[in-house]
Amino acid sequence: MSRLDSFIRRMTAQRDCLDHAAEQLSGRDGVVLEFGLGNGRTYDHLCSLFDKSDIYVFDRHVKAHEDCIPDNEHMIIGDFLDSLKDASAKFERLAKFVHCDVGSGDKAASMALAQKVGDLLEGLIQTGGIVVSDQPIERANWEALPLPAGIAEGRIYLYRQL
Amino acid sequence: MSRLDSFIRRMTAQRDCLDHAAEQLSGRDGVVLEFGLGNGRTYDHLCSLFDKSDIYVFDRHVKAHEDCIPDNEHMIIGDFLDSLKDASAKFERLAKFVHCDVGSGDKAASMALAQKVGDLLEGLIQTGGIVVSDQPIERANWEALPLPAGIAEGRIYLYRQL
Repeated sequence: MSRLDSFIRRMTAQRDCLDHAAEQLSGRDGVVLEFGLGNGRTYDHLCSLFDKSDIYVFDRHVKAHEDCIPDNEHMIIGDFLDSLKDASAKFERLAKFVHCDVGSGDKAASMALAQKVGDLLEGLIQTGGIVVSDQPIERANWEALPLPAGIAEGRIYLYRQL
Repeated sequence: MSRLDSFIRRMTAQRDCLDHAAEQLSGRDGVVLEFGLGNGRTYDHLCSLFDKSDIYVFDRHVKAHEDCIPDNEHMIIGDFLDSLKDASAKFERLAKFVHCDVGSGDKAASMALAQKVGDLLEGLIQTGGIVVSDQPIERANWEALPLPAGIAEGRIYLYRQL
């Protein structure tokens, strides 16, 4: 499979998982946390699925399209792990959805970072809240959910907070 | 439509057009010219469709994944327009396929650049050769071809050299 094919499948899997999670969470109150703004495409998609005022994005820097940048209250700039520690009281048990999109070219580093983000999410996610992650995360109180139809195992990960 | 949806449609349209062109050109000799290496994803896809030794890529700089970089003979670094003028004798009537992927955030500049590339392709493309372009290009001796099924008009452009 070419890199172009693989990339299209990854983007499609991401979009389908975000849509699926939003459908599952329909009508539920709570905040949405995104780790990794990147160019802002998935943030823009989240804004089409959730109330924009509920969405908080964490990233080290802001390099997104102009119209895909959260306002100052909703854009939390800095190291993910430091920011999460600082924000833990603010978001306690408030998150209904988390999107973790932290992968870089370095697979081992990406997995380690996602796991650390997962560990720091302890206490922030509502019971029944959903996590979509580009990396696997092991948490005793998260159950892995089946992926939407057509997505190969291991391409993306879906979890629910018990 | 969100930027993520739009991006997936654009990437899919690009992939489907490359596949369609390769099918149409099956069995034909000639070189493949790509304008815009970018991260190398479409070059990688072209390598899955055509003989790698036939593919020449033009870009101002090389910022692709390590395994998606043509060798020195096949990577022509510099301003597209200067490079094309220099290469016109080498590729005279040899190109069976051209992929023009020159779009940037500036639509007017992207269209103007694609048109200039198109004009400099005069004499380089075989009769019956195919061009896939992310921007519209007007050439008296190119006919617009219908897009593969499922691709909206104006998302990408397909031409055949008369």
